[in-house]
Amino acid sequence: MKTTSPVGKSVPRIDARQKVTGEATYVFDLKFPGMLVGKMLRSPHAHARIVKIDTSKAEKLPGVRAVVTAEDTPKIKFGSNEYFFPYTVDQYPLEFEKVRYIGDEIAAVAAVDEATAEQALSLIDVQYEVLPAVFDAVAAMKPGAPQIHAARNNIGVMLPVCFGDPDRALRESDYVHEDVFVLPSAAHAALEPHVCIGQYEVSTDRITLWSSTQAPFKIREAMAKTLKMQEADIRVIKLNVGGGFGGKLEMFPMDFCACLLSKKCGGAPVKMMCTRQEVFSCTRRKHPMIYKLKSGVKKDGTLMAITGEVIADGGAYCSYGPTVIAAGIMRFMMVYQLKNIRLFGSRVYTNNSISGAIRGFGGVQSGFAIESHMDMLARGIGMDPVEFRLKNTTDPNTLTINKMIISSNGLKDCIRKAAEISGWREKYGAKKETSPGVLRGIGIGIAADVMGSKMYKSHESAGSIIKVEEDGSVYLFTGAADTGQGSDTAMAQIAAHELGVAYERIRIKAADTEITPFDTGSFASRVTFISGNATKNAATDAKRQILEVVAQELKLGVQDLDIEDEQVVNKKSGKMLLSFDQAVVLCYSFNYGRLIIGRGSYNPKTTPIDFRTGEGNISGSYGFEAQIAEVEVDTKTGRVKVLKMYDVHDIGYPINPASVHGQIEGSIVMGLGYTLYEDLKFKEGRVVNPSFSKYRIPRSTEMIPIESVFIETNDPQGPFGAKGMGEASLLPTAAAIANAIYDAVGVQIKDLPITPQKVLAALKDIKNKKQE
Amino acid sequence: MKTTSPVGKSVPRIDARQKVTGEATYVFDLKFPGMLVGKMLRSPHAHARIVKIDTSKAEKLPGVRAVVTAEDTPKIKFGSNEYFFPYTVDQYPLEFEKVRYIGDEIAAVAAVDEATAEQALSLIDVQYEVLPAVFDAVAAMKPGAPQIHAARNNIGVMLPVCFGDPDRALRESDYVHEDVFVLPSAAHAALEPHVCIGQYEVSTDRITLWSSTQAPFKIREAMAKTLKMQEADIRVIKLNVGGGFGGKLEMFPMDFCACLLSKKCGGAPVKMMCTRQEVFSCTRRKHPMIYKLKSGVKKDGTLMAITGEVIADGGAYCSYGPTVIAAGIMRFMMVYQLKNIRLFGSRVYTNNSISGAIRGFGGVQSGFAIESHMDMLARGIGMDPVEFRLKNTTDPNTLTINKMIISSNGLKDCIRKAAEISGWREKYGAKKETSPGVLRGIGIGIAADVMGSKMYKSHESAGSIIKVEEDGSVYLFTGAADTGQGSDTAMAQIAAHELGVAYERIRIKAADTEITPFDTGSFASRVTFISGNATKNAATDAKRQILEVVAQELKLGVQDLDIEDEQVVNKKSGKMLLSFDQAVVLCYSFNYGRLIIGRGSYNPKTTPIDFRTGEGNISGSYGFEAQIAEVEVDTKTGRVKVLKMYDVHDIGYPINPASVHGQIEGSIVMGLGYTLYEDLKFKEGRVVNPSFSKYRIPRSTEMIPIESVFIETNDPQGPFGAKGMGEASLLPTAAAIANAIYDAVGVQIKDLPITPQKVLAALKDIKNKKQE
Repeated sequence: MKTTSPVGKSVPRIDARQKVTGEATYVFDLKFPGMLVGKMLRSPHAHARIVKIDTSKAEKLPGVRAVVTAEDTPKIKFGSNEYFFPYTVDQYPLEFEKVRYIGDEIAAVAAVDEATAEQALSLIDVQYEVLPAVFDAVAAMKPGAPQIHAARNNIGVMLPVCFGDPDRALRESDYVHEDVFVLPSAAHAALEPHVCIGQYEVSTDRITLWSSTQAPFKIREAMAKTLKMQEADIRVIKLNVGGGFGGKLEMFPMDFCACLLSKKCGGAPVKMMCTRQEVFSCTRRKHPMIYKLKSGVKKDGTLMAITGEVIADGGAYCSYGPTVIAAGIMRFMMVYQLKNIRLFGSRVYTNNSISGAIRGFGGVQSGFAIESHMDMLARGIGMDPVEFRLKNTTDPNTLTINKMIISSNGLKDCIRKAAEISGWREKYGAKKETSPGVLRGIGIGIAADVMGSKMYKSHESAGSIIKVEEDGSVYLFTGAADTGQGSDTAMAQIAAHELGVAYERIRIKAADTEITPFDTGSFASRVTFISGNATKNAATDAKRQILEVVAQELKLGVQDLDIEDEQVVNKKSGKMLLSFDQAVVLCYSFNYGRLIIGRGSYNPKTTPIDFRTGEGNISGSYGFEAQIAEVEVDTKTGRVKVLKMYDVHDIGYPINPASVHGQIEGSIVMGLGYTLYEDLKFKEGRVVNPSFSKYRIPRSTEMIPIESVFIETNDPQGPFGAKGMGEASLLPTAAAIANAIYDAVGVQIKDLPITPQKVLAALKDIKNKKQE
Repeated sequence: MKTTSPVGKSVPRIDARQKVTGEATYVFDLKFPGMLVGKMLRSPHAHARIVKIDTSKAEKLPGVRAVVTAEDTPKIKFGSNEYFFPYTVDQYPLEFEKVRYIGDEIAAVAAVDEATAEQALSLIDVQYEVLPAVFDAVAAMKPGAPQIHAARNNIGVMLPVCFGDPDRALRESDYVHEDVFVLPSAAHAALEPHVCIGQYEVSTDRITLWSSTQAPFKIREAMAKTLKMQEADIRVIKLNVGGGFGGKLEMFPMDFCACLLSKKCGGAPVKMMCTRQEVFSCTRRKHPMIYKLKSGVKKDGTLMAITGEVIADGGAYCSYGPTVIAAGIMRFMMVYQLKNIRLFGSRVYTNNSISGAIRGFGGVQSGFAIESHMDMLARGIGMDPVEFRLKNTTDPNTLTINKMIISSNGLKDCIRKAAEISGWREKYGAKKETSPGVLRGIGIGIAADVMGSKMYKSHESAGSIIKVEEDGSVYLFTGAADTGQGSDTAMAQIAAHELGVAYERIRIKAADTEITPFDTGSFASRVTFISGNATKNAATDAKRQILEVVAQELKLGVQDLDIEDEQVVNKKSGKMLLSFDQAVVLCYSFNYGRLIIGRGSYNPKTTPIDFRTGEGNISGSYGFEAQIAEVEVDTKTGRVKVLKMYDVHDIGYPINPASVHGQIEGSIVMGLGYTLYEDLKFKEGRVVNPSFSKYRIPRSTEMIPIESVFIETNDPQGPFGAKGMGEASLLPTAAAIANAIYDAVGVQIKDLPITPQKVLAALKDIKNKKQE
């Protein structure tokens, strides 16, 4: 119908040329006259009391313009889940009582160049009283462990979930299985390090912060709180971002310090950028987690109960801890029809670096645990893992036991389609030996994901404004923060479609807290769904204004008019009345002179998880997917080669199919890294591999074939039926691979990464057991 | 009622601190990495054919980055009254066929520094064939005069106005008087020279122009046309402007060239700034005009007819010629109830520099002519000038003979009040000698003014957007261009009042074609009236959204609610329901999550002057004022000292009284300069006094006492009753002073400036005549 509509088409990225030509501006590229270089002073101790900070020598160093410590601040704590979890507000922008990990921020300097700034750091004299530290989550929970915050047993966040009668259900099960899964930490590995420029304006007492961030409005909020300023006096601007993946979702002490230093310098802009070592060690990392699961099934495959315990090493501060622990537990219930569940989640403070959000939040850890576990349950009753899942997964229009409202749901279709395209029926259990000692296997994992998460604040809004200019071109203002995923493109497509015009008309301006409407940020796969709906609403509002003028001019009913393919049409007669350009000229003409300004906002009707009961409908809709891995395992070396990944995803409707495929491929490759290579290692609280040479991520030479298929469920809430989907494909990858390894060689690896050593050791174990 | 409302209060300027501390950013202050300096090559001839332009030597000069001529452009003409007067589109951004005045733009260079750029200019070899030139408007109209454009007799614009039967009315008059008034050219004398920075972005094929301008959207339009680009691909940003006064109301070739040079340089920003000499000689100037008037009155004072001719020296190009000639004629009919009028206006091309808009457009010239003329008519029938005016001026709710719709009209009140506060009755005709040969006199002038002018394009719209942030602070986006007059402050006041909140909540972002809604610009005293109404509408829209949420929450009717004094109140019960902050928190809370984004636009219901008939209702409302000058004339030296000016102004309602007084005082002082000192002099087309040392404007030592009183007519169309008023007080000043001089010493000076020499010569003439 709408032949010019870009929705559903793989139109080029709106920022493609800028990115390809290298003209795209990142924060690091900005140069301002008189700009200074800032650096953070970080704790060398994992746990210590701060006795005294003497900055006098640093201040006297020529070229140093300012030094700040907590004494320059209002000493107000911030957190990332403040609204629903005030007890998680545990970090000062600059610490002054204690340091809790190696890297904790104590002071910052601004100087004329980097060398001077670094020299100044070395001249700051901090006296510490070193305290006993704890680096293991389980040890930290034990009585007598070093106390990091006030939390009892160092458990910062608890999420006890219990529905039904799990004990009875286990008793009534035909097969009960217990597992322990161990998940390591990981880094986001965004290519662009954390970087910001803070500038204070003396005459207006206002601040501008350019920051590589996924959530400019979140930074504004935290900055306003910790600097005791009005939000509107702080402008946070996002430029191009070279990847975030959850690692740029909060205000960092460097954001705060860049602004504070600029203020202390009388307004000179201060640029701060993390070294790669700092990014790995002192920003955020994935929560290492332990899943202890005990579950039961009936012979017919009915999943009776899941029980167990989830322990997450949260590191020194809470960050997005509640969201992560919730995501690590609640996703079970989106995927599986469960009547009985009991899980106890604990997020534990340790003196490691801060665990926080990372693509999938806790869902990746959970995905590995539960999807490996499910395979073992199926195996226990001799059931095909695909059949087992088809029997137990959720359906459309389901109210889960914890009150999640699932409307559209293509999960079963995803499973069937994945089985079909992967040749599951022929391959599973075939144990094909492709060369001596090299065996093939196939494995499945499934997942569900949210599109938004009412965890960070009371609402989850996004807004958009659309200005239709006199020449018919269209400016779109959205608070949504494109961090490389292509949301600017998707927003432009949605605006163009709803307005009935060509994609090329749209110019976008995004993620500037002064200029654009509010948006909570890029996380939880929310942008297409929530910001997309806001943009659609703004376009509807703009379109209505145009149609009102046309209706008045032509003496027709506005309800009978629409804009399609750049034409105003009479919906009743199908007649083209005038072109979009003509309609805009009419709006701005003599008799009307009416500016076309559309505005829209959207807030899904969601409820947060109640941490006392586990109930809550966290997202406006839910996405689903099934993933199948085909692997080859060399039994001589233990090496696993992923031959191909099949991914079938219920994406509602793809606004930009190429972008959706890109998100899926990116997720799978990130999952591949977490499955086979990545492991952010610590020794006494210190990251031992804080560089790309030591921290192994998949490289272009290790890319794998990926076949990705969409299931279109046309979500009733989504803009043009679309759902969010930036994270889901990462969730089942590790389990799919692990399950495929089992299919190939009969060993189930329960801790990541799946290294050749672990595979060899497991094969040896089996051999030994067989020989016994 | 609304005690916190800032409307009607002299709140501090929103930009006061920035201006006072020197932190306010002007275009010249901007520094970008790799920024180049641009310079214009200008014609040294007043009229010449361009035979050849050779830029090869300049291009080879080390440090030169680009040279542009018309060959680099699409060769498209632009004009400033394009929409209704397409025949006035007569200027290329770079000329290539002919040059028509000394300063006409032919080429531009961009180089690493100013010295190199200037050297490059000297290396551009232009071969001219010099043509005969004409520098006098009357001579230019004669057959055989050098032909400057295609226009017959060099008359670029004609405005023949005829209503009633003027000849019969003159015959029926008891007294008929003829006068010729001669008005010189003048400069805007803004302290900040014209300056811009153009930057082309290769990857997006877009342009950003920072320009010291009164009309960013107007520049965008002209730039898009002449560069053959989409408007939305051009972003024009206004920063602080150090005065415009009509002189920064158009795209200048330097704006165009800065962008074109940047494009040719591959994207390096190019800064161009006029020298002071260029500002005086090559930007815009006031139209020199001749008013030949012949009018008649009855003995009882009834004004029977005005007839005559108006000739304006338009210089080399048309610029805002039609608007100026219309303003120079049509204002008669706003002020005086006229049944018979015949005036023939001609705007004539000459080889002088370009005449254009300047505060009051042609109203200042017209004001001097008509108000001097009226005094002489009154004198002819022995009637008091105040009484004469009271008898003949327009009333409220008047449809003028040329179909102007005057609603509120405080003109008679202005006249009465001015007479009262100045002690007119006692002083007029008293001829008090204060010291030997020094005589005092008093004189009156009156005026009307528009608030907007439908001359530049088909509509006269302005738009505003208001974002109410989560913390209750308010961002206001307006296209209105504050050039120092304080419109940002007025907009903030209007927004605050309508929203019912404190002024301090408002943050303003203005005049950026990408970010802010459309606005035709700062001219014709339109901003408070038109942009003010748009801002009020946006605030109403935002308020309604807040009240809808409150109404829903409290189960009340939205029509019963309002916001006053930072409180949501029940209008029926008068009860305060909750504070504004609480209401905003509610909007953004759990159940609503509704972003508050208000949008408004306003377009007065006006019609342009029909240049065939003189009919048209050019403004949405009209402002009025009376001004009385008290002077002392030294008959020995001819020196005129203005003792005091009394100004009574129908401003509808003052949004910011201090700002309104400031506008009145600024206008009067500008008028004082034009009356006594200013004269932009030409010799063979060359400005002979292009510097502040040679071009005399009033200085702080020459300031005069001004008493300014408001008449509040509460205009039904104006925001909170306000009218625009940035120009009116300049219109009657010269005549009031000239008439006061007559009252003092009996001579009527009919050409400006009124120099001691002219006064002495006139006194000598009288003496001679008396002796005859």
